[in-house]
Amino acid sequence: MTEAVKRVYAFGKDANGNNVTEGNTDMKWVLGGKGANLAEMANIGLPVPPGFTITCQTCMEYANADNTWPAGALDTIAEYRADLEERMGKRLGDAEDPLLVSVRSGAPFSMPGMMDTVLNLGLNDESINGLIKQTENPRFAWDSYRRFIQMFSNVVMGLDGDLFENAIVAMKNDRNVASDTDLTAEDLQELVSEFKAIFSENVDGAAYPTLVVDGAVQFPQDPMVQLQLAIEAVFGSWNNPRAVLYRQKEKIADDLGTAVNVQSMVFGNKGETSATGVAFTRNPANGTKEFYGDYLVNAQGEDVVAGIRNTSPIAELKEVEGLEEAGAQLEEIFEVLENHFRDMCDIEFTIEQGKLWMLQTRAGKRTAAAALAIAIAMEKEGLITKEEAVMRVAPDQLDQLLHPQFDKDASYDVVARGLNASPGAAVGEAVFSAADAVAAAEAGRKCVLVRWETNPDDLAGMIAAEGILTSHGGKTSHAAVIARGMGAPCVCGVEALKIDAAKKEAAVAGTDIVIREGDMISIDGTTGIVVLGAVDLVMPELTGDLDTILEWADEFRTLGVRANADNPEDAELSRDFGAEGIGLCRTEHMFLGDRKQIIQTFILNDDELIREKAVADLYEAQVGDFYGMFKAMDGLPVIVRLLDPPLHEFLESPRELDVEIAKLEAAGAPSDAIAEKRALLEKIDGFAEQNPMLGMRGCRLGIVYPILPEMQVRAIATACARLQKEGFAPKPEIMIPLVSVLPELAKLRSVAEAVIAEVAAAEGVELSIPVGTMIELPRAAVTANEIATEADFFSFGTNDLTQTTFGFSRDDVEGEFVPQYLNEHLLPYNPFATIDPGVAKLVEMGVELGHEGNPDIVCGVCGEHGGDPESIHTFNRIGLNYVSCSPYRVPVARLAAAQAAIKQR
Amino acid sequence: MTEAVKRVYAFGKDANGNNVTEGNTDMKWVLGGKGANLAEMANIGLPVPPGFTITCQTCMEYANADNTWPAGALDTIAEYRADLEERMGKRLGDAEDPLLVSVRSGAPFSMPGMMDTVLNLGLNDESINGLIKQTENPRFAWDSYRRFIQMFSNVVMGLDGDLFENAIVAMKNDRNVASDTDLTAEDLQELVSEFKAIFSENVDGAAYPTLVVDGAVQFPQDPMVQLQLAIEAVFGSWNNPRAVLYRQKEKIADDLGTAVNVQSMVFGNKGETSATGVAFTRNPANGTKEFYGDYLVNAQGEDVVAGIRNTSPIAELKEVEGLEEAGAQLEEIFEVLENHFRDMCDIEFTIEQGKLWMLQTRAGKRTAAAALAIAIAMEKEGLITKEEAVMRVAPDQLDQLLHPQFDKDASYDVVARGLNASPGAAVGEAVFSAADAVAAAEAGRKCVLVRWETNPDDLAGMIAAEGILTSHGGKTSHAAVIARGMGAPCVCGVEALKIDAAKKEAAVAGTDIVIREGDMISIDGTTGIVVLGAVDLVMPELTGDLDTILEWADEFRTLGVRANADNPEDAELSRDFGAEGIGLCRTEHMFLGDRKQIIQTFILNDDELIREKAVADLYEAQVGDFYGMFKAMDGLPVIVRLLDPPLHEFLESPRELDVEIAKLEAAGAPSDAIAEKRALLEKIDGFAEQNPMLGMRGCRLGIVYPILPEMQVRAIATACARLQKEGFAPKPEIMIPLVSVLPELAKLRSVAEAVIAEVAAAEGVELSIPVGTMIELPRAAVTANEIATEADFFSFGTNDLTQTTFGFSRDDVEGEFVPQYLNEHLLPYNPFATIDPGVAKLVEMGVELGHEGNPDIVCGVCGEHGGDPESIHTFNRIGLNYVSCSPYRVPVARLAAAQAAIKQR
Repeated sequence: MTEAVKRVYAFGKDANGNNVTEGNTDMKWVLGGKGANLAEMANIGLPVPPGFTITCQTCMEYANADNTWPAGALDTIAEYRADLEERMGKRLGDAEDPLLVSVRSGAPFSMPGMMDTVLNLGLNDESINGLIKQTENPRFAWDSYRRFIQMFSNVVMGLDGDLFENAIVAMKNDRNVASDTDLTAEDLQELVSEFKAIFSENVDGAAYPTLVVDGAVQFPQDPMVQLQLAIEAVFGSWNNPRAVLYRQKEKIADDLGTAVNVQSMVFGNKGETSATGVAFTRNPANGTKEFYGDYLVNAQGEDVVAGIRNTSPIAELKEVEGLEEAGAQLEEIFEVLENHFRDMCDIEFTIEQGKLWMLQTRAGKRTAAAALAIAIAMEKEGLITKEEAVMRVAPDQLDQLLHPQFDKDASYDVVARGLNASPGAAVGEAVFSAADAVAAAEAGRKCVLVRWETNPDDLAGMIAAEGILTSHGGKTSHAAVIARGMGAPCVCGVEALKIDAAKKEAAVAGTDIVIREGDMISIDGTTGIVVLGAVDLVMPELTGDLDTILEWADEFRTLGVRANADNPEDAELSRDFGAEGIGLCRTEHMFLGDRKQIIQTFILNDDELIREKAVADLYEAQVGDFYGMFKAMDGLPVIVRLLDPPLHEFLESPRELDVEIAKLEAAGAPSDAIAEKRALLEKIDGFAEQNPMLGMRGCRLGIVYPILPEMQVRAIATACARLQKEGFAPKPEIMIPLVSVLPELAKLRSVAEAVIAEVAAAEGVELSIPVGTMIELPRAAVTANEIATEADFFSFGTNDLTQTTFGFSRDDVEGEFVPQYLNEHLLPYNPFATIDPGVAKLVEMGVELGHEGNPDIVCGVCGEHGGDPESIHTFNRIGLNYVSCSPYRVPVARLAAAQAAIKQR
Repeated sequence: MTEAVKRVYAFGKDANGNNVTEGNTDMKWVLGGKGANLAEMANIGLPVPPGFTITCQTCMEYANADNTWPAGALDTIAEYRADLEERMGKRLGDAEDPLLVSVRSGAPFSMPGMMDTVLNLGLNDESINGLIKQTENPRFAWDSYRRFIQMFSNVVMGLDGDLFENAIVAMKNDRNVASDTDLTAEDLQELVSEFKAIFSENVDGAAYPTLVVDGAVQFPQDPMVQLQLAIEAVFGSWNNPRAVLYRQKEKIADDLGTAVNVQSMVFGNKGETSATGVAFTRNPANGTKEFYGDYLVNAQGEDVVAGIRNTSPIAELKEVEGLEEAGAQLEEIFEVLENHFRDMCDIEFTIEQGKLWMLQTRAGKRTAAAALAIAIAMEKEGLITKEEAVMRVAPDQLDQLLHPQFDKDASYDVVARGLNASPGAAVGEAVFSAADAVAAAEAGRKCVLVRWETNPDDLAGMIAAEGILTSHGGKTSHAAVIARGMGAPCVCGVEALKIDAAKKEAAVAGTDIVIREGDMISIDGTTGIVVLGAVDLVMPELTGDLDTILEWADEFRTLGVRANADNPEDAELSRDFGAEGIGLCRTEHMFLGDRKQIIQTFILNDDELIREKAVADLYEAQVGDFYGMFKAMDGLPVIVRLLDPPLHEFLESPRELDVEIAKLEAAGAPSDAIAEKRALLEKIDGFAEQNPMLGMRGCRLGIVYPILPEMQVRAIATACARLQKEGFAPKPEIMIPLVSVLPELAKLRSVAEAVIAEVAAAEGVELSIPVGTMIELPRAAVTANEIATEADFFSFGTNDLTQTTFGFSRDDVEGEFVPQYLNEHLLPYNPFATIDPGVAKLVEMGVELGHEGNPDIVCGVCGEHGGDPESIHTFNRIGLNYVSCSPYRVPVARLAAAQAAIKQR
């Protein structure tokens, strides 16, 4: 070929039946997932319609050059097009025996439904005759042509699809028929003329000068023009808003680009011995090894995915007359694919007049339950190793299994049933549009998104909702696929649901029940049921496959996993989930409720005796708190963080009080009452801060009010001593927050040690309570060698560390400019969700320097990043001893830690 | 000696006149400044009363062991005491010819008046007889004994000095005499008895069991007991509160300790051929090479320093009968000392019956003017090199010369004159106590501290006041020495001022003027005049010695010095002071006054046209701003920082508005007026942030409101283009603040470059305007290699970097816990004043990584640390290209940069 850079790769056979494929499955970064696997299928002898793939790199060059083609690229494509014509023995646009092609996107990562596809390309006013001649089926031919014009206009030219749908409806009304299939070849031919007219009227000639003929826009008759425009549209679809949003959510890099597959068309709509379908080599919902999928006779592939017609189960395929052979061949291919790819595969196929063609294969998306079941089964089948099995389950997906389920003991009436498309249960207000779902979520209200069927434009709403409910579409519909990917519960195909999206309500057929916007509903994606009202939810336990995989994971991981918990219930839950200790017990959570009054008394009172009484009351309460925590975690470490938040968090809002005073004054309230309020306001104002995040909190509190850490340490030591005397093995550790300089830690450590020694003497026990610190300020990270000399452990508080490292106030920026930063790709992801490399660098410095200062120091992380799989890989690389996360994230962290260990071997 | 660690060093001669000194001037870390120089003087043959020095390390061991002696130390001291007795041929406590000693502190750094001294130690009821016998002067002997008891009781035992003063007053009343000198030997003997009784009554026997004899406390008769207690008292004085405060202010480490010098007493109070004095080898106020100092005939040294008696100028000494020889010898010693120490020396001496003894020498404290003059003169005399001359001037001291002076054209009436003790002028409210000075300063009011004479307890007030005015004491009085050290203006010895501190007023003798608390007064420490009322002040220019030293400094320094300035006046001033450019022009300072209304319109209005009009108005104004700045700095770089603060800084306080609304509502204001206010409040609340320091500011503003940076860059480029066309050489640079990630900078850089290109095209000129960024977030510092790829320069914003690195909000913490941290030594100094090592580490990373990303990157600092000499040493070491500071700090920075370069060679 003519270029130094190889931009195009052929796949499939030549005219002599020889495989001329140039790529393979390892080339997905170049050919995209679809292109690489089309090549691979051809290489292993499966029937693949011949074609060629234009590389992802070409897409990015085109996009980066402001949508202009790299020199020579179009020539190369023309050469491959000519080669394909030669291999097929047909020519695009030929009036006798025309070649038709599909033009499909195919990125390195699957982005289902996100990008554009054009089918039947090559049809024009001449080749339609060839198609009629070859198929002897004018109706099919005209239908193909009108589909092509419609799809080209919509996908490539961006015209509104309704323009064409309306024309079809008008035609059906005119002909007085109900269904598209009732339209005749002549009707369709007339529609083609109408469609071309719509095209001419609606396409902007200034934007497409090449389409202007004799002063008017014409539907392009030159297949080369059709092809180039279609490829450009696919390239452009890489950066359409829904694709960008999807990549952002799925953390797919923006600079990968998409490949374009130009492939000979095969037709599933050539009559009753033609069909098309999608299938999985195992059940993607539960992992069972069975024939799973849907097909439609006499249809094109898009019809299946769009869920417009109700499909048949694939298991029935080989029993259909004229499809028996293809059906049997498909079953064999399932085995071939699984043995070759050593994974569950997702396939698309078309049967053209009895002959099976494979259009796509890839690793199949699956629910967490299925992922577990398949990984374990394949390990047992000897197909994969235990490490591979552990690597096969996406940790974030486990969340699905840890999602709430309907309480077994709850009683409720099922108002409708549908397909159990994505497991887990959800409760929320019914909303009928993606925008309403987003609005509800932003207002803090849980919602369930109810749609006829979802489409890619609904993505933001699907992310915002607790669960998704559709009245149409099968288990491979858009709603089902996306929901499973996100781990959101989904019930789909609830045909009894008659949705009126405009009125924001859904009637349940056969009943007088109407679900209106704002009504609470519950759905169970594991069983497919819909309930009006809120059903109590419960969490499942770790059993079966999940437990197996986690046990395997524990064999490989080197990173410990602890939980963040502030009460015995959460501590027990986390222990059930496999937590090896409590990495963060936030004591401020113990100062709420009744105790808030006590801490307020301490803060606001000047009388030393009253203050001391308040502290004594807190002490009594805290002893009980810690007793419960340590007992629940008997034998496992519990890191208790001393009081951390600024004291004004426990006080009234000065602004509200100020307004209240203004009102009292205006109402002529007694002056002594006002004076008292004013005095309180002055006091509270004394605690107000411009930037509380950077103010008097953390260990600074303990330095200014040493009575507080003394009280807390005394309570910890006392609870520990009592449990020891009762025969338990409590293992508390004391964590001093927000240290910036060594002397802070040294001072509070000596305060703590003195109190511990006193309690040990008074209680007559030996107490061994390590003292460590949070590393959550850059100052601490870069001087960790000094700080480690007084610390038994470091716990990296990556939430705060992210705030100060970036200068981002989490309270402010997430609602402010961070969303814009994500949209504009100034940030690749939210650094509060996944650890940023700059923050990670400080953690790494902290760990390295910490070991210089104290070779025995134990290092962990207790920010929310501790439960994020991607962050866990970073922490494993850095060499932390453990991560600590919320109880429900513990299983996720165990699996992620194992994968990190395996990957970093 | 018996110990492995050498704890005691002898100095002076033995009984045969041989020098047995063990130390030298290089040992000040061991022997303290006084001890090291006593040894050095003995080594070079000067007359030094024999004695020995106990090391600083012994003091710290004693202090660290909770005031208990290291094993063996007391034995060693006893051996040296015995050796001293042998060298002197006298014994402590001897009834025939007793040895008397002084016990004085002496730390590695001079801490004048901060620590304790005991004189005449060794006197007791027996040795008093020996002293009488030897001196044949019973009155002198009894006076010495009563002084000893008084001093011992006060300094060593901590008894109130008034107990003894009252006894003296009672005795004088009883004897009906006016002066102490009128008391007879018998009177003094009786006083000794009374003093011993006072001692017995007031010392706590439980605390000093060794002093209890027959059940009652007795004044210690055993000289060994006296000596040990006195040494312990000196050790203890290292940690007295005023010493701690002094060290904090002077940044002296707390772990140095003080040495103790035990030295044979010589007496300046043995009659008219005895004298005592303090002197400088050159004039410490202006540097003139002249005989400078004060002496008192027939007095002890403390009398001179305390300023209780009025002293005579030392130039007159050699004309006094009986003191001629000692006076002449003293002049010769001045030469010897200067040639030996190659510096201006401060000395203490005593003449005992015609024989001169040197008690102390050290480098003399001097005003900035004197430091400059002496350094230049010594260089010209060939005594020191130019480098040494540059090293001899403390940069911080230059501030004195840059202090305000009375405006030459101001008219004012001088109400009184005193000594010009410390140069510079000050204007403020008169206050009459240190506490009132502190209170005034805290309330933000400038004040002048008016005292009879200051003492170490006044230190906090002296720091708080603008200037110091005393009615008593000479140029070596406490007030004068401390004020010069601090660079605070001071007029002292204004005898016409009759101060009544209790009534908080001062009458001016011979007039009916009374200065009352709160009255504005002005003092000029350069001329010694006092004015009632506020005199206009002006800044001096760089001329004469200062200019010379700065020119020399410029020969050595490698670090550039720029200024932070936001208007043409400040820019010109900084240029006069030698600034080589503007390192930081804060554009938000251009948005105040009339323009605040415009920016408010922009922020609060939803109408796009009105917003654009506001931005256009700002643009017009900004073109003028930048035109003026660039013209003032013609040919020199001007770094303009784009708008930085959060927008709500330009808006009303939501709390005040909320209170206003509550009042309007209560007053029944029209509902539409209230609704309008509520709408405004809602708008303003939309801009409110929990932590504005970490919120939407800096480059985040420019990303959310691109119209703002576009407008500013357009104004910069336009002003630049106009000046170029007028023949000037403007050198603007554009600085993007608060960058945390590369894409922020890349985006705004491309915005800026596009606008610059547009303006260049429109104006028909070539524009070359570098674009760089502030490095003021830890994220930016640790990823500087990335950020540097889009930056022409880095300017380290160490104010903000300190805030985020420490998690300290400057607005909050300086009034909150930081003072406590400084008091408790959790921080060695305020990290906002002098760069902290942890923050410096991030700066260093930023510079290193920055050069990885862009080898040509220019790195500077524009935080307030840029004008702090100690920080400048750090920045020089790190390898910054320049520092930028306030205009008045530019000379300080030039000198500090030279010293850093010389030191780090």
